[in-house]
Amino acid sequence: MSLANHVPLSPLTFLARARRAFPGKIAVVDGDGTEVSYETLGRDCDVMAGALRAGGIRPGDRVAVLDLNTRWLLAAHYGVPGAGAALVALNSRLAAPEYRDILAHSRARVLLLSPTLLPALAVSSADQLPVETVVLLPGAQDPAEPGEQVARLPGAWSYGEWLARADSRGIELPGDEDAMIAVNYTSGTTGRPKGVVYTHRGAYLNAVSVALEFGLSASSWHLWTLPMFHCNGWSLTWGVTTVGATNVCLPSFDADRALDLITRHPVTHLCGAPVVLSELARAGRRRDFVAGRLVRAAVGGAPPAKETIAAVQQMGFQVTHLYGLTETYGPSLVCEYQQGWTDLPAPVLAERLSRQGVPTVSVGDVRVADGQLAPVPADGRTVGEILVRSNTVAAGYLDDEKATAEAFRGGWFHTGDLAVMHPDGYIELTDRSKDVIISGGENIASVEVEKVLAAHPEVIEAAVVAVPDQRWGERPVAFVTTADGEVTERELTDFVRDRLAHFKAPDRVYFEALPKTSTGKIQKHVLRAVARERTQGGPGAPEGAA
Amino acid sequence: MSLANHVPLSPLTFLARARRAFPGKIAVVDGDGTEVSYETLGRDCDVMAGALRAGGIRPGDRVAVLDLNTRWLLAAHYGVPGAGAALVALNSRLAAPEYRDILAHSRARVLLLSPTLLPALAVSSADQLPVETVVLLPGAQDPAEPGEQVARLPGAWSYGEWLARADSRGIELPGDEDAMIAVNYTSGTTGRPKGVVYTHRGAYLNAVSVALEFGLSASSWHLWTLPMFHCNGWSLTWGVTTVGATNVCLPSFDADRALDLITRHPVTHLCGAPVVLSELARAGRRRDFVAGRLVRAAVGGAPPAKETIAAVQQMGFQVTHLYGLTETYGPSLVCEYQQGWTDLPAPVLAERLSRQGVPTVSVGDVRVADGQLAPVPADGRTVGEILVRSNTVAAGYLDDEKATAEAFRGGWFHTGDLAVMHPDGYIELTDRSKDVIISGGENIASVEVEKVLAAHPEVIEAAVVAVPDQRWGERPVAFVTTADGEVTERELTDFVRDRLAHFKAPDRVYFEALPKTSTGKIQKHVLRAVARERTQGGPGAPEGAA
Repeated sequence: MSLANHVPLSPLTFLARARRAFPGKIAVVDGDGTEVSYETLGRDCDVMAGALRAGGIRPGDRVAVLDLNTRWLLAAHYGVPGAGAALVALNSRLAAPEYRDILAHSRARVLLLSPTLLPALAVSSADQLPVETVVLLPGAQDPAEPGEQVARLPGAWSYGEWLARADSRGIELPGDEDAMIAVNYTSGTTGRPKGVVYTHRGAYLNAVSVALEFGLSASSWHLWTLPMFHCNGWSLTWGVTTVGATNVCLPSFDADRALDLITRHPVTHLCGAPVVLSELARAGRRRDFVAGRLVRAAVGGAPPAKETIAAVQQMGFQVTHLYGLTETYGPSLVCEYQQGWTDLPAPVLAERLSRQGVPTVSVGDVRVADGQLAPVPADGRTVGEILVRSNTVAAGYLDDEKATAEAFRGGWFHTGDLAVMHPDGYIELTDRSKDVIISGGENIASVEVEKVLAAHPEVIEAAVVAVPDQRWGERPVAFVTTADGEVTERELTDFVRDRLAHFKAPDRVYFEALPKTSTGKIQKHVLRAVARERTQGGPGAPEGAA
Repeated sequence: MSLANHVPLSPLTFLARARRAFPGKIAVVDGDGTEVSYETLGRDCDVMAGALRAGGIRPGDRVAVLDLNTRWLLAAHYGVPGAGAALVALNSRLAAPEYRDILAHSRARVLLLSPTLLPALAVSSADQLPVETVVLLPGAQDPAEPGEQVARLPGAWSYGEWLARADSRGIELPGDEDAMIAVNYTSGTTGRPKGVVYTHRGAYLNAVSVALEFGLSASSWHLWTLPMFHCNGWSLTWGVTTVGATNVCLPSFDADRALDLITRHPVTHLCGAPVVLSELARAGRRRDFVAGRLVRAAVGGAPPAKETIAAVQQMGFQVTHLYGLTETYGPSLVCEYQQGWTDLPAPVLAERLSRQGVPTVSVGDVRVADGQLAPVPADGRTVGEILVRSNTVAAGYLDDEKATAEAFRGGWFHTGDLAVMHPDGYIELTDRSKDVIISGGENIASVEVEKVLAAHPEVIEAAVVAVPDQRWGERPVAFVTTADGEVTERELTDFVRDRLAHFKAPDRVYFEALPKTSTGKIQKHVLRAVARERTQGGPGAPEGAA
């Protein structure tokens, strides 16, 4: 309930404000170039909320959306919670059985579906899906494809028919800021998907935090190189609206199209995984691309390679490195750039920039802890687990008390990621998901070797895993994808030996595509099994390890 | 209590973060040039909290501070609530009886006192003050006054002695975000001071909001031209720390010293009443001042004159106009600059810029309402009262349930300020504190006449009040202060007639200092009494009113 001095925190208030402050301003440039004002976006959301309510959606229900980065998926971030429901923004890269699992697990009552993605569901009628109502969103209207046939699904509503039922109440604010606003499904690197529950309060606070961290203002233009389904776009689906900035939709990532949009619009911000940056760098090199203004690029999911940072900086990008998880609404650490760093030698600077950093504005506390949850010494060497305590930690896993209790034990969220605390307070990941390689009693952080491999000009991505070894216990083995394959195993191992202790160089390098989860995490358990099979019996001690 | 996913909102967390992210960065440049790092500021706050607790301060107690804009008053914004107490930052321009009234009303147990301001209390020993403990803060150490004698007060602790008792627990976060963080005394324009209660939650949210509105980042330098005691510096005592920016202390406002500091440091932001801007403009003209970078100047309390805006813009300042009250933690409306405005003719633009605007990011809702609390039409003509509903509305008036109930009736905070709502959603004040002048059935908004008078190059400040008039009911009379007095009454009334309907021109213009409250509001009730006395019987209808 709203009193004169107590209003539930909700990012829905940002849309109300942006409509009032900037009604005629461009809120969204959609994938087909359509410009949507804040007033129009607001009306889209109002009518979406009204149609959901008219269809029987009640507070606490779930509504799933399967779409690329479009004005409709953005609108659903307000229209769905504006009807009191929680948004399940589905990853657009899943397989049909995974969609059915998630729809069933989330008990979504409605699915709003992009015709473009209909084939991924592999159904011939709406009643084959475990939801009550399927609504086809307006189809792709890319002017490049004027004759495109809009997909149809028997039993599904067209968007126009469905909206016609809408009541006239528009977006309604939640009565309780701890109400559920979204459920985001994450697979981790193993196991069944889990539904991570976000609240209005957490989304409000993280939206404000990312707006501050990224330096967003009313004159910012944010290019959606990050999928909106990924932690609700690191809360930027709400954070861009916080300040009344403009969204530029890139339906799915394409480096050349991204550079075109940066040329066409005054884009100031973009986000993504390191591979987004490296692909932008590659595409930029091909066309001698230089942005007409400073573009701030936030990169998360893994440390960016210093060569990538250097390449995109030459294009006019300024890179900020972030760390977070689905369970932390996206970013919870940021590698804040310190004044003194400008004078550091390039390799030292690159090392600093690849750290995960310090807590963001919204985060209560982050520690690197030992098994008793006590902080490890800030010595840059002692490895512990990253624990987070924050309003921007999820409420829990949907309908999974056991997993929630396990992950939240002791008053901290347990990330499962290992790291060290440096004396300057910066946290550095040593290994995401605990796969330290222990060789001859020495720890090898696979991420350290991966960073070096990724720095080779021919390497696009690298993953390093342990294989059992009779003499040394474990040895590292690498899997890499390359730009055109013109590099040998020997060249890459020498490249690593030139940069790290010899024992850290991988015994073998396999050139092949890396298996990934639906959220883009490399499936190291698959690689471990492959590597183990190929090195049966072990190769013995590598030369370099002596 | 802090859970993994629920941490009480408090601006104290911003200091914890800034210490961790930017320990060696300059948090404060004190008035004597001393540079205080975030780590040092944090330790100052820790030990202040520890000394308060050691002296028996308990959660919910009040601690008063009487100081200019210094590192100690800034530290008290963390050290006092870090001991669970509420900060009473005293206006440094009050008279001795007012200090005693406020200390007694707030039941402050401790007073931290700047030696510089000791004379204002008019006491010869500490036991003459209605507090348990008086502590003298470190004295002025301005290098310009090396031989200065530090003031002494029998019965008062020196700061060093007092700190020596501190426990080692440091700043502690509140268990409840709705706990009191500060009490700010306001007089309104009449009556006894009232203690406006701020909470940790409200302060957190407004700090974030001002940081976003002002575009603060870690590279910002905020010059304290605004008193920190004024609504806790519009929440900027916390908001600058939110992003780890730098405070530059100007102990009390002096235009030339402010310009010196803007030259010496990379100042990017400052705030104040319109008179701060106009004095900066005047001082700037004298020395052909141009800032070496863009300086964002936020101005509140009254609309800035367009001539002032133009003058400071030539100095490199960008002006943002804000509206708020002590009861709203400072700013609650902001005159957001719209893209299309750049092309407007200068007079139209000036008119737009003088509006109070739209709600800030943190504000739930603001309406201009009729007597039934319903919104007036957005026609730019219908006058109503500004009502605010927001987490950044105060918890109430300390120990004054009647005033609280009256001001918060109907689920809205009643500002007492009259305004219109324009069709574009912008709110414009027609009269602060309801003193519309009704002449011959026509409303004359005194603020409208004041704005015109203030636009005259010789006028520094103007106040317009009503005097009774036999024929017309009421007539306006003006009081002005001028730069050097080289302007006549006739010139000013002609100046108004050239710009407004003739009936709006004041019948009389008095050249004299304007009586003000301790918070700088012009005391219109005093002027009304003076004007009434001088115009006994009334002057009849002025020529221009026919």
